[in-house]
Amino acid sequence: MIKAGVIGGTGYTGLELLRLLAMHPEVELSIVTSRRYKGQKISAVNPHLYPFIELEYEEVDTREIAARSDVVFLATPHGSAMDYVPGLLEGGTRVIDLSADYRLKRAEFERVYKREHKDKVERNAVYGLTELHPEVADATLVANPGCYPTGAILAVMPLVRAGLVSRVVFDSKSGISGAGAEPTETSHFPNLAENIIPYQVTAHRHVAEMKQELGVQVSFTPHVIPTIRGILTTAHVFLHEGMTTKPREELEQLYQRFYAGKRFVRLLKTGVPALSAVRGTNFCDISFDVEQGSDRIVVMSTIDNLVKGGSGQAVQNMNVMFGLDETAGLWFPGLVP
Amino acid sequence: MIKAGVIGGTGYTGLELLRLLAMHPEVELSIVTSRRYKGQKISAVNPHLYPFIELEYEEVDTREIAARSDVVFLATPHGSAMDYVPGLLEGGTRVIDLSADYRLKRAEFERVYKREHKDKVERNAVYGLTELHPEVADATLVANPGCYPTGAILAVMPLVRAGLVSRVVFDSKSGISGAGAEPTETSHFPNLAENIIPYQVTAHRHVAEMKQELGVQVSFTPHVIPTIRGILTTAHVFLHEGMTTKPREELEQLYQRFYAGKRFVRLLKTGVPALSAVRGTNFCDISFDVEQGSDRIVVMSTIDNLVKGGSGQAVQNMNVMFGLDETAGLWFPGLVP
Amino acid sequence: MIKAGVIGGTGYTGLELLRLLAMHPEVELSIVTSRRYKGQKISAVNPHLYPFIELEYEEVDTREIAARSDVVFLATPHGSAMDYVPGLLEGGTRVIDLSADYRLKRAEFERVYKREHKDKVERNAVYGLTELHPEVADATLVANPGCYPTGAILAVMPLVRAGLVSRVVFDSKSGISGAGAEPTETSHFPNLAENIIPYQVTAHRHVAEMKQELGVQVSFTPHVIPTIRGILTTAHVFLHEGMTTKPREELEQLYQRFYAGKRFVRLLKTGVPALSAVRGTNFCDISFDVEQGSDRIVVMSTIDNLVKGGSGQAVQNMNVMFGLDETAGLWFPGLVP
Amino acid sequence: MIKAGVIGGTGYTGLELLRLLAMHPEVELSIVTSRRYKGQKISAVNPHLYPFIELEYEEVDTREIAARSDVVFLATPHGSAMDYVPGLLEGGTRVIDLSADYRLKRAEFERVYKREHKDKVERNAVYGLTELHPEVADATLVANPGCYPTGAILAVMPLVRAGLVSRVVFDSKSGISGAGAEPTETSHFPNLAENIIPYQVTAHRHVAEMKQELGVQVSFTPHVIPTIRGILTTAHVFLHEGMTTKPREELEQLYQRFYAGKRFVRLLKTGVPALSAVRGTNFCDISFDVEQGSDRIVVMSTIDNLVKGGSGQAVQNMNVMFGLDETAGLWFPGLVP
Repeated sequence: MIKAGVIGGTGYTGLELLRLLAMHPEVELSIVTSRRYKGQKISAVNPHLYPFIELEYEEVDTREIAARSDVVFLATPHGSAMDYVPGLLEGGTRVIDLSADYRLKRAEFERVYKREHKDKVERNAVYGLTELHPEVADATLVANPGCYPTGAILAVMPLVRAGLVSRVVFDSKSGISGAGAEPTETSHFPNLAENIIPYQVTAHRHVAEMKQELGVQVSFTPHVIPTIRGILTTAHVFLHEGMTTKPREELEQLYQRFYAGKRFVRLLKTGVPALSAVRGTNFCDISFDVEQGSDRIVVMSTIDNLVKGGSGQAVQNMNVMFGLDETAGLWFPGLVP
Repeated sequence: MIKAGVIGGTGYTGLELLRLLAMHPEVELSIVTSRRYKGQKISAVNPHLYPFIELEYEEVDTREIAARSDVVFLATPHGSAMDYVPGLLEGGTRVIDLSADYRLKRAEFERVYKREHKDKVERNAVYGLTELHPEVADATLVANPGCYPTGAILAVMPLVRAGLVSRVVFDSKSGISGAGAEPTETSHFPNLAENIIPYQVTAHRHVAEMKQELGVQVSFTPHVIPTIRGILTTAHVFLHEGMTTKPREELEQLYQRFYAGKRFVRLLKTGVPALSAVRGTNFCDISFDVEQGSDRIVVMSTIDNLVKGGSGQAVQNMNVMFGLDETAGLWFPGLVP
Repeated sequence: MIKAGVIGGTGYTGLELLRLLAMHPEVELSIVTSRRYKGQKISAVNPHLYPFIELEYEEVDTREIAARSDVVFLATPHGSAMDYVPGLLEGGTRVIDLSADYRLKRAEFERVYKREHKDKVERNAVYGLTELHPEVADATLVANPGCYPTGAILAVMPLVRAGLVSRVVFDSKSGISGAGAEPTETSHFPNLAENIIPYQVTAHRHVAEMKQELGVQVSFTPHVIPTIRGILTTAHVFLHEGMTTKPREELEQLYQRFYAGKRFVRLLKTGVPALSAVRGTNFCDISFDVEQGSDRIVVMSTIDNLVKGGSGQAVQNMNVMFGLDETAGLWFPGLVP
Repeated sequence: MIKAGVIGGTGYTGLELLRLLAMHPEVELSIVTSRRYKGQKISAVNPHLYPFIELEYEEVDTREIAARSDVVFLATPHGSAMDYVPGLLEGGTRVIDLSADYRLKRAEFERVYKREHKDKVERNAVYGLTELHPEVADATLVANPGCYPTGAILAVMPLVRAGLVSRVVFDSKSGISGAGAEPTETSHFPNLAENIIPYQVTAHRHVAEMKQELGVQVSFTPHVIPTIRGILTTAHVFLHEGMTTKPREELEQLYQRFYAGKRFVRLLKTGVPALSAVRGTNFCDISFDVEQGSDRIVVMSTIDNLVKGGSGQAVQNMNVMFGLDETAGLWFPGLVP
């Protein structure tokens, strides 16, 4: 059994980790930390986890967390993971960081997140978009991708790698759980229900991850929709000048070849992807539509932002790091309807 | 033109008053107060009111509010209206209080709301359920009813007055706007969407108003539903021992006679009332179903909690107080769909 | 491995069965029937089941279904299961009927459902409310309970068995998935969103099951809420004349004793049950509130109507019938948020 | 008083017309047709219109409709208005067609809608985007714009007219009421709630109107969101090659000059537009964000699809055609919250 620790077990990302790890056949939860709830039973604070988790929340030092864990998941806010990572790595444990702290080079992180990176070492974490980075297997530090980049990058990478893409406009629509468990103006029901809210319209920080991975011109505009879970990304893909779109069949083959053997990427032959089909799961469903004779392809992808866009992908990375089948503990269908 | 002032013009009740008063053909908004936003244009803080209201929020003393207004609406939290009412009445203005402060006798208020009543005078405010209290016309102080009592009392009063009712169980379901504009755990979208939340299950304070008006045995359990506006009250009415239900037609006539000429009460001949039909309006729609041969009638009523359950009824009361048609500024159909 | 057949594998109940059976460690799906989709792959018609189910929908005669199955689930409309049951039982397979056809005595069925019962034999099916009917273990025919009765009966049975209850008013609120996969006026988004719809207000047929099991005076009013899954039942319980409510602690012990060892019933010590905590699961969560010094207790229960209120309880019954742990294939926490 | 007839008074567009016309101070409803409900009172079929409309639905010939009306609104499905328009115009009434039948040149209509245009005369209807086509004033036939084109064109026209725009990608999100009053797979609550559905991803017919009006390269992808009313259009605007974005202030002035005196276009100085602020109203709210130093501007517009995107704009056109203030009967704020 893999002994897994979770730092920050009270936010939506942490709770989703607990849900998945508690059911994982090869994992034993070794420690879950929370300053606020230390000493309280996890399942008392979160009744839906009763009686699946017996542990209490603890508050202990980094050294002890490392000592008690084969792998530690960091489900802390941005800027906070970097307080733990050096100590955890020194302690000899492997680390999967779900925050943004190690997704970009240090300098790029400081530019994009407008704050100093407190970890003075360039750690060269592996960017844990599992399907694209097999080197996760040997990583000691994995930087789990952002929710938006996961769905966006998977949607268009086959076209990018085929050298077809000049520019992409990602117009993404996310459930509000991505904004966390704390009530805000945006998450206030009368503000969000019967509405859709664009935000950080030209300047969302996740665009940096997309550019780093894709290497083409990227524009990105996110919206919050009146939905709890799920992200639909509508990728407006423009081909290089002079190119026109290929027949649908040819592009289907391109995608199938690219994602052959990737069990969490499902390519739809017909229709558009639905959030319900990925609800609670680690799948990324993809379909596309070709504007014939033009330079534009529209690719649509759906993920559950808390699973493939967060904690599920983290568990998938753990599986790969520890030589398990990548689907271990993650192989179940979506909650439809 | 009636000069109308609003104390507390930033919560949902206050904003709804502004929406209605701004469109009222016989009203001129004279003053709107807000400590937080004083000096800012109302329509800058609330873009949906642009360009309907030119005023700025002000913060002035009670004396001045009275001096500038023929009528003052109090849209303040419970326990706060009583700070203004004595001064306003002394200042010679008429007052419509949308809080709970004057709905019950002083002693009863102190028992139910578990706080001292700071106004030492028993004011004998008129309980402003307009259809049932024509004495509103001559009132200087109107206590506007709570949202739940409005729909509940209107639903069953014809049966109560006919001497049929032994006991009522009101099971009410409200949109979340009734809980106010401030984000809370309950109003957090992931908590309320795909959910329904019972609260104050045996002890909601509105039951005191219901008992005061109805004079029969009353039980009341409210729920919040994933909806912005509207209250459906399902009234389970039990007849006196030994009575059995009358034919539907007889009860229909009872209701029709009782509400004859009451233009904001609509009795449905078929079907159940829909929140959309009262959305944004001052109507209370009522229908009922008779369990034949038993002692039970189920009456259903719908209102918009912010209009008939709050600011609309306040305006209706103002209309009656100032000798206008009671529908003035309030006569429009619901937003369907 | 238990060979399990499903008759009617395209409605919400059938699909939920497929989701649960496909993941069940001791079950092999042997046959799934559908007239409409025969010959098509189940996972092509329902992409969320890809690649979990390899089978195609089939249309074969009852004899063959029986021959290929150790147990057959009937997920057909009311009035249709009775066409299959005699043949299935003759064929030597065990049957779990999710329709209403065998929940009541034949005569009572004909009275309540206003149609002839085509099966001329009184089968004495076991009413499959698993926690209350251990004789499920030996049954050849289980009548799986209705969704509303499941949550309602579990909520109040401890009080009823303790001889406290005179009368219960069940006011239930259900997600729309209970109404099926076919679009209707009620399920039309603009009609249901921002609304709540009472229906069959004094005459819903599920009341017959409640009365049969509880044996006290029962009133029942269901509503549809703008939610996909889940039922909250608010049970207004009235004690026998002259009784007053007992202290909360005493009632807590009553419930704990009654449900000791029943792993799918969770008694909440604080707060009210949330639909999310049971979403996708087989749990029934229960809490209650005592109106001190009166004759009224309010009990609240939540279930997922498609799981504990349908297909999950059917699988739970199968587990018991085949000597498995009753939680097999059903032991996972709810999808929160 | 203007005598106004409505052909097709039962769909969402027709009902919204009735809501607006019933309240219009200068209009008398002269006739409302419906084949299905002929002879029934409009307010019996649609309880929310009780007691605002006394008329019954009628079914009469075109000649009589014309004779009884100064203006006729066509709220019929695409392909059906063309059956009435010639007769109505011959009858000397003015016509506002809310369908697509006269928005494009005949040949273009036939190409885009893939059907023959039964009206053999090229009518040269005025495209009734009121803010952009003052010639509405003199029109006998107005083709009321599609819902998507209204919000999309208003969003970017100032930039287009200033010669800045090379290409626009309109990514639109609409409430489901745009799809009509008939239940469908898409409008089925369990399919749409907790989801967002892209459709006609590269081939929606409204793109033809956008191109006709804007004259630049246009891509358009619509989505349905789990919301009743409202459209948010996110316009990704790309400047001509070599241009970079101007300072925000300069663009603000451009928009203010362009829309000076247009009372239904509101330019937001801060924040993003909310569907609630336009709910039930004829406003189009616009804001934008500039990606500094790049070639991209993101413009966001919101409308109520049934009002400014349909029946409200039709009434606005009527106002202009009959020399009334364009805001007559349409001047009220949005239903917030």
